Amino acid sequence: MSDRGDRWLEEDQSGVLRVRYRVGKTLSSKRSDFQTVEIVESAGFGRMLVNDDTVMLSERDERIYHEMIAHVPLFVSPRPERVLVIGGGDGGTVREVLRHPSVVHCRLVEIDGAVVEACREHIPQTASALGDPRVAVTIQDGVEFVARTDERFDVVIVDSSDPVGPNVPLFGAEFYGNVHRVLNDDGIVVSQAESPFYDSEVQQGLLRILRERFPRVGIYNYSNLTYPGGLWSFSFASKGGLCPIGDFDPGRVERSSLTFHYYNAAVHRAAFTLPAFQLEKLGGLLTPLKEGRIRV
Amino acid sequence: MSDRGDRWLEEDQSGVLRVRYRVGKTLSSKRSDFQTVEIVESAGFGRMLVNDDTVMLSERDERIYHEMIAHVPLFVSPRPERVLVIGGGDGGTVREVLRHPSVVHCRLVEIDGAVVEACREHIPQTASALGDPRVAVTIQDGVEFVARTDERFDVVIVDSSDPVGPNVPLFGAEFYGNVHRVLNDDGIVVSQAESPFYDSEVQQGLLRILRERFPRVGIYNYSNLTYPGGLWSFSFASKGGLCPIGDFDPGRVERSSLTFHYYNAAVHRAAFTLPAFQLEKLGGLLTPLKEGRIRV
Repeated sequence: MSDRGDRWLEEDQSGVLRVRYRVGKTLSSKRSDFQTVEIVESAGFGRMLVNDDTVMLSERDERIYHEMIAHVPLFVSPRPERVLVIGGGDGGTVREVLRHPSVVHCRLVEIDGAVVEACREHIPQTASALGDPRVAVTIQDGVEFVARTDERFDVVIVDSSDPVGPNVPLFGAEFYGNVHRVLNDDGIVVSQAESPFYDSEVQQGLLRILRERFPRVGIYNYSNLTYPGGLWSFSFASKGGLCPIGDFDPGRVERSSLTFHYYNAAVHRAAFTLPAFQLEKLGGLLTPLKEGRIRV
Repeated sequence: MSDRGDRWLEEDQSGVLRVRYRVGKTLSSKRSDFQTVEIVESAGFGRMLVNDDTVMLSERDERIYHEMIAHVPLFVSPRPERVLVIGGGDGGTVREVLRHPSVVHCRLVEIDGAVVEACREHIPQTASALGDPRVAVTIQDGVEFVARTDERFDVVIVDSSDPVGPNVPLFGAEFYGNVHRVLNDDGIVVSQAESPFYDSEVQQGLLRILRERFPRVGIYNYSNLTYPGGLWSFSFASKGGLCPIGDFDPGRVERSSLTFHYYNAAVHRAAFTLPAFQLEKLGGLLTPLKEGRIRV
């Protein structure tokens, strides 16, 4: 960890690459039932949430991830009122969800209370949203929650980290069967879907599961500064067939008067364009996209 | 460099982030007049060209960079016959240029003969293109070459590394004055333009210089596995006003029967969509894009 007197936080990727961040003070470090949860000050990326030595978010680039996971489904959903976020205990996804004035209820289901506590204390940039009266925070396994709840949602956002340990079931068929069940008829589910560079098998597996239950399945990309390889993906699936391009009205983004760090109507559309190598691996698992009403 | 018996090659980014690659044998290491030129075997990315401890290319992802720097201008140029590549001594850009059957002459001007020699010997994946009879290799400073040559080109590709040391003039006004001079009337110049995350001032400077001389100026992005931050850019400028979207015919890509690792007609179009934060910094320096003939 030490290098000419500086502290570096090092993250391994597939044993072939490591990313090191220059860091300062550790603001919090706890061993929960699930993982080690740390908040550190970094030299270049603001505060970072680090679970089991893997960077979950940095203040500098968290908006990219959170805007792209939240606004793509919320601007396709005709009138999103009730939203379920699974994982995402840092609150960043909830913050973006709440920017849509139609939302009356946002439930966050996070398995690890230590993440919520640490972020509430040290990363208000994301966690302050959790104090909004429209938000309900439930500390519970998301897999268990969707299996048992009677609530119904317009949008479900699976804001999970990598498919290891307690996250593995979040990439499974049983979980998505229950997500389908808790969605309203025109509901949408969007999920963190790893990197096309490193995890094409995870992406294939996830899309196969979605295809079994959802009539419309897509995948879209974004570039995150602090994720290895840069290019990462979210999956998109709709219960009633809503299309992320054909049923997306760019004018609605404009009329919302929201401002963004990364997202905009053109980015929304372009994100569904996949590089050739990713299209080759996933193309057979995607449903066709409808043409858009308005081109941007 | 040593870590539990493994060797790691470490690359610094702005003093706040370091990327480390697990590497094996060093195949070649030479100190040229300009830099240290090394070819190493890596654990996850094939062979890598490393100049002054900065990864220039890896066999695993070089096609992304080389396809995006070459095919965007070559598919917009109505009939590219004569192409100038400045830098790019590895040969990867030249390889992609030569895939266009209209090209009769491709001149590579590389300042450092040691790069060409090392790649010819150890990275045939890119350098084998340099043996093609349509190619002329000139070991010379590209700045000097464009100031003196009588040749004229349909496309100029500035395949430079970061703006440090001998590369600084490649980001300057005098150089682009001469590039403008050596271009035919409907000529296009595309240049390596750093990362929107780390180098927005470099991007602004480059676009300002291009705007002084070219009636059409744009910037487009791609995601490279081994470049820090993932999202990187190329600038686009045309002497006669050719538009990278409006004068791009997706059908021409299809009719070419070329296959790609990353590029395709949809990627070509989507690449010009900028994230909000980049658009905010650069929008005032870009010329409007014409609508495309055929939407993909």
